[in-house]
Amino acid sequence: MEIINIRRSVREYLDKKVEDDKIELILKAAMQAPSACNQQGTRFLVITDKALLEKISERFQSMRFAKNASFAILFLMVKENLIAQVMAPQDASACVENSLIEATNLGIGSCWCGVYPREQRVSDAIELFNIPSDLEPFAIVTYGYPKNSDALKVIDRFDREKVYYNTFDKE
Amino acid sequence: MEIINIRRSVREYLDKKVEDDKIELILKAAMQAPSACNQQGTRFLVITDKALLEKISERFQSMRFAKNASFAILFLMVKENLIAQVMAPQDASACVENSLIEATNLGIGSCWCGVYPREQRVSDAIELFNIPSDLEPFAIVTYGYPKNSDALKVIDRFDREKVYYNTFDKE
Repeated sequence: MEIINIRRSVREYLDKKVEDDKIELILKAAMQAPSACNQQGTRFLVITDKALLEKISERFQSMRFAKNASFAILFLMVKENLIAQVMAPQDASACVENSLIEATNLGIGSCWCGVYPREQRVSDAIELFNIPSDLEPFAIVTYGYPKNSDALKVIDRFDREKVYYNTFDKE
Repeated sequence: MEIINIRRSVREYLDKKVEDDKIELILKAAMQAPSACNQQGTRFLVITDKALLEKISERFQSMRFAKNASFAILFLMVKENLIAQVMAPQDASACVENSLIEATNLGIGSCWCGVYPREQRVSDAIELFNIPSDLEPFAIVTYGYPKNSDALKVIDRFDREKVYYNTFDKE
């Protein structure tokens, strides 16, 4: 599928705002992701404020480029009372991945920056965004129109040696 | 994005084989997923053997329908020496989600059945497929042509109350 094939991490962005209706399409795609027992326990903090994006750049070594993004989404997990609580990180991951694919479909570059389960990053995010105690930061994803016009292109990651068949009995 | 919107868990399948080239497209899409530090630590056990699919149905309460699938993929995580080992479950989740979207794109139904981190399911999968000690079972996904022709249709999961903006300061 072309869109899945051309998705790549894009860390350099044009100084051009992503339109509100496109942000909403990205959020909708994220929420369409499957979740364990259909628990839908992921929440979304949309960060469009430039000062906050700069604070992400300052606070997180691995997200220096965040200040140049048009916006970011902090994906959050509901911390308690989910039907399948242990599956919450997988649910959130599926939401993130859907958002990346939808962004790619809209010509928008994105970069998935892991937060959970790294304790320092989790506590930094809680402090920076004043996260309430019933939510846990999962990942920050930055989005923006790519600076390089050929940023979204195919890199073939297929590796037949990673595929096995039926059982490992005869390996 | 239409394909993301119509993806749903499909547990009833036609008695019709999914073609090998389509299985390969699904594997390719899975491997195109992003991974932490680009570590690409997910592996794929493709299960087409009917007797094995039946064993999945017998062993896993939540996967009773597996015996009717055309095939399944057991997603596996490399257990040691990854650059960002703690992110391996998130990487595997992104692979799973890509595979679901590609399957949907091909008119194939799928269902993501969580294994990791549930200890009993992990040990059952290790035993059933004779998984080597350097790999850890993550999830089993079943795939097949849907029994119901309208199985792949939009269910709108968008919920504006799950979206927050910038910080929680004023909530």
